[in-house]
Amino acid sequence: MNKIPAISTLDDVRQILTELPGPDVEAARAAQAREPQLTKPAGSLGRLEQLAAWTATWQNRYPPRMKNPNAHVFAGNHGVVAQGVSAFPADVTKQMVANFEHGGAAINQLCKTFGVGLCVEQMDLDNPTQDFTQKPAMTDAECAEAIAFGMSVIDDSSDLACLGEMGIGNTTSAAAMCLALFGGNALSWVGPGTGLDKPGIGRKAEVVGLAVNLHKAEMLDGLDVMRCLGGRELAAIVGGVIGARLKKVPVILDGYVSTAAAAVLPSINKRALDHCKVGHVSQEPGHKLLLEKIGKNALQDHNMRLGEASGAVLAVGLLKAAVACHNDMATFAEAGVSDKTA
Amino acid sequence: MNKIPAISTLDDVRQILTELPGPDVEAARAAQAREPQLTKPAGSLGRLEQLAAWTATWQNRYPPRMKNPNAHVFAGNHGVVAQGVSAFPADVTKQMVANFEHGGAAINQLCKTFGVGLCVEQMDLDNPTQDFTQKPAMTDAECAEAIAFGMSVIDDSSDLACLGEMGIGNTTSAAAMCLALFGGNALSWVGPGTGLDKPGIGRKAEVVGLAVNLHKAEMLDGLDVMRCLGGRELAAIVGGVIGARLKKVPVILDGYVSTAAAAVLPSINKRALDHCKVGHVSQEPGHKLLLEKIGKNALQDHNMRLGEASGAVLAVGLLKAAVACHNDMATFAEAGVSDKTA
Repeated sequence: MNKIPAISTLDDVRQILTELPGPDVEAARAAQAREPQLTKPAGSLGRLEQLAAWTATWQNRYPPRMKNPNAHVFAGNHGVVAQGVSAFPADVTKQMVANFEHGGAAINQLCKTFGVGLCVEQMDLDNPTQDFTQKPAMTDAECAEAIAFGMSVIDDSSDLACLGEMGIGNTTSAAAMCLALFGGNALSWVGPGTGLDKPGIGRKAEVVGLAVNLHKAEMLDGLDVMRCLGGRELAAIVGGVIGARLKKVPVILDGYVSTAAAAVLPSINKRALDHCKVGHVSQEPGHKLLLEKIGKNALQDHNMRLGEASGAVLAVGLLKAAVACHNDMATFAEAGVSDKTA
Repeated sequence: MNKIPAISTLDDVRQILTELPGPDVEAARAAQAREPQLTKPAGSLGRLEQLAAWTATWQNRYPPRMKNPNAHVFAGNHGVVAQGVSAFPADVTKQMVANFEHGGAAINQLCKTFGVGLCVEQMDLDNPTQDFTQKPAMTDAECAEAIAFGMSVIDDSSDLACLGEMGIGNTTSAAAMCLALFGGNALSWVGPGTGLDKPGIGRKAEVVGLAVNLHKAEMLDGLDVMRCLGGRELAAIVGGVIGARLKKVPVILDGYVSTAAAAVLPSINKRALDHCKVGHVSQEPGHKLLLEKIGKNALQDHNMRLGEASGAVLAVGLLKAAVACHNDMATFAEAGVSDKTA
């Protein structure tokens, strides 16, 4: 049960994607049956009601549970920083990983606030991916290895997986992947990232356009896009999404970069992201467009653009609230509350 | 210090409103000075950064604190239910208060989830206000007493006051107050409340229009509006807003009814709601319009319309996150993270 097949090539991943488990229809029905009995006007908890049902559906369990949510922050380095696409130097990836490990980053405070376990995963930081303006970011084997790693870190005792990233240069990677997956204008996918100025954003768009053009012929599906333009931490997020599906763990994606990583999957299995919600809409301008392209609404909008799974973990409060209301509220009958006009 | 003057008439309240304390400019400056030193791109925590500064500003304290947030749910009964304006019978107010006290309502689960203290306050439930289609809902003394009570329940050791209500019939009261305060069409302020159908909403709009017309001549400011069209639980919310300001406790207002109650104050002191945020935008359709009229954005939108302070308490997660990030993140210097392009 929940055994994960061995992966050594992207074709192995493609194979797994043909056989993803579907929703637990009975858990969904059980949630829908309880909701109208709870002591509140029908529908008055809005999104919280939907989130409780969604959690049960993808946990394959009724009642749903939210006692053990976890955040996975994958960190990677990118050869494309050689093109001057980031406001911060590449060293910052490692420095921020140390900051995560010492408890000093935003994600540490957010995980503490919402009772979320934090796992920081370093993806071969001393070996940046190739500069994808010159050659594919990863080989097939490298990309498959990172995906397999992402799959392996999801624990089937987990109630929720918040997936996020850290990697100087990776908004460039995300923008390139979005352009390759969804087309349009390079500038519409490119933003300031950690803080580029306007001329910097122009250069970044140029880099993105060139790279997509360079690899066009060999990008036949989303996993090719990941291999050519992605990064190890982004491939690990893809692995996290797949692993969570196999292990019955619902997923909250973080912002632009995490969503762009996950967005490579629907080209292979259009139901691949059904167990994923997006925690917030990022201020990074491409995120809104990307959400439209994959047909998802974000759970929140607080003008954030940090990454580190911060927007995903901030949404755990909503999920805890949703599950607590669904499971623990009294019914009209239990509370002796009239549920009809006298 | 923080002594509250005696109140026996609405003129006593008017007097207090002329002398509300202002923001703590030094606390605001201290928050703004720390923010750019924290290990994240400038501005990348968006609204969380603003909430941390706002909390410090209105707590008159730096650093800000969010260890002891409290929710106050005021319950009241309304004579206007005789006009058939609610989908639930008036008995439900008391039944729901019992449900709060036994821990079975949504607000109980939300307070548990976010570590918020819950105080439920019964406002003379056996004596509904007058039916305001016939005479003013309250006398001057009754309204003043309810306001004084609301002021008294705010504790100056509290880090935050979430203000909400329970009262069958009170969306009718809220709609009438909004129409009296801001004009427009009665229908634009009226919604389904706990679940009226379309003809019911039409009748409710008629009741609201008639009532506002009846009392027009004697409603000279917002407190008159409260007396003529409000209710004890709504007056108590006004008292909570004022008491919190005097005791340096920032306020989160809940949905349509709570915001409508607070909205009587700016006509008397236009800075009276500066220490208040609105926790969410309700599905009750008048709320969006009301937020425009008082110039506030809600912190969240989750399609909720329950009341009971539920939307306010849901926002406590954001405030806890904001304060935790602001206070506990490492600075660039502490973490040895580069904050400039190499």
